[in-house]
Amino acid sequence: MRASVLRDGRMVYRDDVPDPVPGPGQVLVAVRSCGICGSDLHFAAHGAEVLALTAQMTRGGGGMGVDLDRDIFMGHEFSAEILEAGPDTETYPAGTLVTSLPVLLSDKGVEPIVYSNTTIGGYAERMLLSAPLLIPIPNGLDLKHAALTEPMAVGLHAVNKSNIQPGETALVIGCGPIGIAIIAALRRSGVETIVAADFSPKRRELATAMGAHQVLDPAQGSPFDTAKPAVVFEAVGVPGIINDVLSRARPGTRLVVAGVCMQPDTMHPFFAIAKEINVQFVLAYTPEEFADSLRAIAEGETDVSPLITGEVGLDGVGAAFDDLGDPERHCKILVTP
Amino acid sequence: MRASVLRDGRMVYRDDVPDPVPGPGQVLVAVRSCGICGSDLHFAAHGAEVLALTAQMTRGGGGMGVDLDRDIFMGHEFSAEILEAGPDTETYPAGTLVTSLPVLLSDKGVEPIVYSNTTIGGYAERMLLSAPLLIPIPNGLDLKHAALTEPMAVGLHAVNKSNIQPGETALVIGCGPIGIAIIAALRRSGVETIVAADFSPKRRELATAMGAHQVLDPAQGSPFDTAKPAVVFEAVGVPGIINDVLSRARPGTRLVVAGVCMQPDTMHPFFAIAKEINVQFVLAYTPEEFADSLRAIAEGETDVSPLITGEVGLDGVGAAFDDLGDPERHCKILVTP
Repeated sequence: MRASVLRDGRMVYRDDVPDPVPGPGQVLVAVRSCGICGSDLHFAAHGAEVLALTAQMTRGGGGMGVDLDRDIFMGHEFSAEILEAGPDTETYPAGTLVTSLPVLLSDKGVEPIVYSNTTIGGYAERMLLSAPLLIPIPNGLDLKHAALTEPMAVGLHAVNKSNIQPGETALVIGCGPIGIAIIAALRRSGVETIVAADFSPKRRELATAMGAHQVLDPAQGSPFDTAKPAVVFEAVGVPGIINDVLSRARPGTRLVVAGVCMQPDTMHPFFAIAKEINVQFVLAYTPEEFADSLRAIAEGETDVSPLITGEVGLDGVGAAFDDLGDPERHCKILVTP
Repeated sequence: MRASVLRDGRMVYRDDVPDPVPGPGQVLVAVRSCGICGSDLHFAAHGAEVLALTAQMTRGGGGMGVDLDRDIFMGHEFSAEILEAGPDTETYPAGTLVTSLPVLLSDKGVEPIVYSNTTIGGYAERMLLSAPLLIPIPNGLDLKHAALTEPMAVGLHAVNKSNIQPGETALVIGCGPIGIAIIAALRRSGVETIVAADFSPKRRELATAMGAHQVLDPAQGSPFDTAKPAVVFEAVGVPGIINDVLSRARPGTRLVVAGVCMQPDTMHPFFAIAKEINVQFVLAYTPEEFADSLRAIAEGETDVSPLITGEVGLDGVGAAFDDLGDPERHCKILVTP
């Protein structure tokens, strides 16, 4: 079958990938749409560093088990159609449209569907999912929109972890897909003052469309000079941002770090100490948040269509990875196998 | 009168400091005992950096207003005896033994009693306090013990901010005065598993005396290999500790940063993100925590006597600053004017 795989730091089109075979509890599905995530771009460019950091953190007690010298499957934001169930597997009928937490259960254990030499992700014609994790896509929901369940769940989780109250001002720094997902979740939570900051005019437009009450261009001055946020969501993920927030934020600020900075980052603990800042680092979401995210999209509480700025086939993934570097052109590109 | 002042990075004995004169709402007191705080040692050695960082954080909108080229008064952990009240000031009778939040209220505003060219601290024969902030020392409590109210309140505040529950394991890294105060507060809170780590055998002994259930020597292996803490209290305050905790802690760990690291510090946000760690930076205490800390000492809930490892006069403060560098010899030295 066809797929796009990571090889030597580039996404490469292949038409000779063997079809995966569902085991017990697994389901073979046809991918209908798969979003390209910023973390995939990062892994393509800096995979060795990601693996080294993970190995350092797990101290030999785990790690990702990924070999960068072999092809790597990626794609964890997908909608799909059930083709067939594995042996002794009860599930929905063939033809059912579904999404799922990007996790594959097997007799080897629990494997994230994120970067793998063996477990196929959403940048492929077909992949395996786990029957207990399937969530049917409500009737009539655009499968492209359903593919955005995962990134929207990331934003919802960040907001839930912040314990923000409707009367508290939120500042969202960075309006890429995660910042946008945070804005949408803040809006759904009834937060009355959502301020968003991004250097890109297009991204600021998008932030407004998704629910920000005020947008700021950091090139015109620090957002902290205008907003007086109680809660700051950092959705940029480059070195220096956290320190800048710590130095400018008000006493008692809660900082939610949703941007994934993979480099070492230097900060002055003194700034955070003097102001008793709380920093909550966040990742991913709960199964409930994932399901709630799909429901919100399906019921029209969140309109994700403004996020989708491009669509490519499996042979266009490499070019799409390049194109996503330009925030004026793109936010989310979907792969349609 | 006599005092010990910071001059060119050294504590210098003076006998020619003019007596302070209490204004309205102020009270002249005779200092009876004053603890030497690690932050005073740090300011003596790195005052210029502290002032530069503060100026950077306040961006010209405040700062500490301290001139390092002039003598600096310090000492913020004190017990004292009331001598006389300022004009139109109602307070306790002369002779009453008191302590106070280290803050002086005046018609110029609120000034912390910590580092100042003009506001005298506890390393002096006499100083000014604010009538509304005075707390009488319960009858019979040793004035040296009462002087430890302030550092013990710092530990109590760190524990309160952590929201630790009795069944959760606490790991306290660093058993200097702040780590010890945290251990005492954890014990008072009913936490059932308090693990403390310090390279110094003397400090580990002290930790046990103050309530730690288990003590570990980091030279024998990471404390995280033995303890499985839900809450980690960092009470060391040197670069690298936070990153080490982030890399070794379990998912969902709450890290309370009570150590005051004044240098830039480099960490891998990735470690914290992958494990959704919460970092609460803490400083100081509330007035209620200060009062509760005094009450706990007075009622015998916390026995602070093991902390006190030395006592000097005002002419011995300089040597005491040097001696405090050796954790085998000293924890808390009190100045008795």
